[in-house]
Amino acid sequence: MRIARFSIDGNVGFGVVEGNDLDVIKGHPFAEFERSGQKVPLDKVRLLPPVLPNKVVAIGRNYAEHAKELGNEVDDVPVAFFKPSTSVVGPGDPVVYPAFSQEVHHEAELAVVIGRMCREVPRERVKDVILGYTCANDITARDVQKREKQWARAKGFDSSCPLGPWVETELDPSDLTIQCTVNGEQRQLGRTSEMVRSIEDLIVHITEAMTLLPGDVVLTGTPAGVGPLNVGDEVAVTIEGIGTLTNKVIKRG
Amino acid sequence: MRIARFSIDGNVGFGVVEGNDLDVIKGHPFAEFERSGQKVPLDKVRLLPPVLPNKVVAIGRNYAEHAKELGNEVDDVPVAFFKPSTSVVGPGDPVVYPAFSQEVHHEAELAVVIGRMCREVPRERVKDVILGYTCANDITARDVQKREKQWARAKGFDSSCPLGPWVETELDPSDLTIQCTVNGEQRQLGRTSEMVRSIEDLIVHITEAMTLLPGDVVLTGTPAGVGPLNVGDEVAVTIEGIGTLTNKVIKRG
Repeated sequence: MRIARFSIDGNVGFGVVEGNDLDVIKGHPFAEFERSGQKVPLDKVRLLPPVLPNKVVAIGRNYAEHAKELGNEVDDVPVAFFKPSTSVVGPGDPVVYPAFSQEVHHEAELAVVIGRMCREVPRERVKDVILGYTCANDITARDVQKREKQWARAKGFDSSCPLGPWVETELDPSDLTIQCTVNGEQRQLGRTSEMVRSIEDLIVHITEAMTLLPGDVVLTGTPAGVGPLNVGDEVAVTIEGIGTLTNKVIKRG
Repeated sequence: MRIARFSIDGNVGFGVVEGNDLDVIKGHPFAEFERSGQKVPLDKVRLLPPVLPNKVVAIGRNYAEHAKELGNEVDDVPVAFFKPSTSVVGPGDPVVYPAFSQEVHHEAELAVVIGRMCREVPRERVKDVILGYTCANDITARDVQKREKQWARAKGFDSSCPLGPWVETELDPSDLTIQCTVNGEQRQLGRTSEMVRSIEDLIVHITEAMTLLPGDVVLTGTPAGVGPLNVGDEVAVTIEGIGTLTNKVIKRG
């Protein structure tokens, strides 16, 4: 099932994607809900970020070929960092090129959407805390990342975390194609099976330290092929079984 | 004016501290509000974190003597990192010693509470976006911080960000004594005038990249004297003109 968050005529809601329509949800996807049977055409709504995360916990260097292309080793422990809620935008939303960087990169990633409050999750229970999966772009000011030891600014600037287009709740995430194109040209191509640490490993590692809340998002790292984005570019992240998240890079107005 | 957030008999509110009482606020401290004249005794309420930050942006190595004690240089640019909302606790709340660390340190810090949504704040407007100041303890799993390149787990674990006891809205923060005691014994002592970068510098630096929201908190770094906390310890951060934030370290139940 694909659950989208949308706005139409000033109202915000959730709906289940059925072909070219959304079947509007009564209730909330994190609790009990039913399909209302009321349909709205997908091309009449604005899709919003499918969840409003309280926090996004992201993992660096989780694909060996990508670590290598930036001259890094894969670390003994996962590199975990935060992207704040203010960095999240939805499908079709602009990514605003930040004034404090001259080298902004795309990073296509599989995003795990947390479905229930959890802490110290045992490996065998990880599947129970996951609502589903969506596409993410862990947009990074690479020059700032090189200069600043902690990545709050380099990876936490406004609009640096596009998420969408919807949450796919029935998906085996273990071996999916993940791809990034810029203006239709392929830049990144990998498979989620190439992750150094599995989704189970990452959720165990994160929740050993902190509570995850419903709607929180875990980004699982990017495959090789990261590269620059320029104003005017259209960047698209496509993950097999989920769909495509497209955003245009604009100049700050 | 000192604005506290409190609960009594299951109700949550804000109040202005007047001697041993709280004058309950009608409205919200981030908008228009009035004092209701309804008083509740401070010793009858439970004080809560004075704000519920969407994010806490913290700054490392902002006191030269503290950078030196950990063997670090003061960096050319401020070291900015996030503490998530799930790390925030209030005055009197327990700090739970995390299972994944054997070396948890106190770090007394002046916390800046943001009063309005802001981005790209010019230096001369910084004072306009600040609601006030409170005490913070940037509790850190020092062993984990040494092992993990990004500090999401080391500084973002549950209960690692005590804030309180209230927000002081009328205060010149430029030269205040900041102190940390453990079980009544002084561990840290410094003055906010020793900060390498001023509060203005920090807010300009952060908002160059990201939007701050009302209730977001900026931590301004810790003076020298950081050291270990053990289960059973009572740690207290006192800042001149604000008050004292006290928390007890407990074992995870």
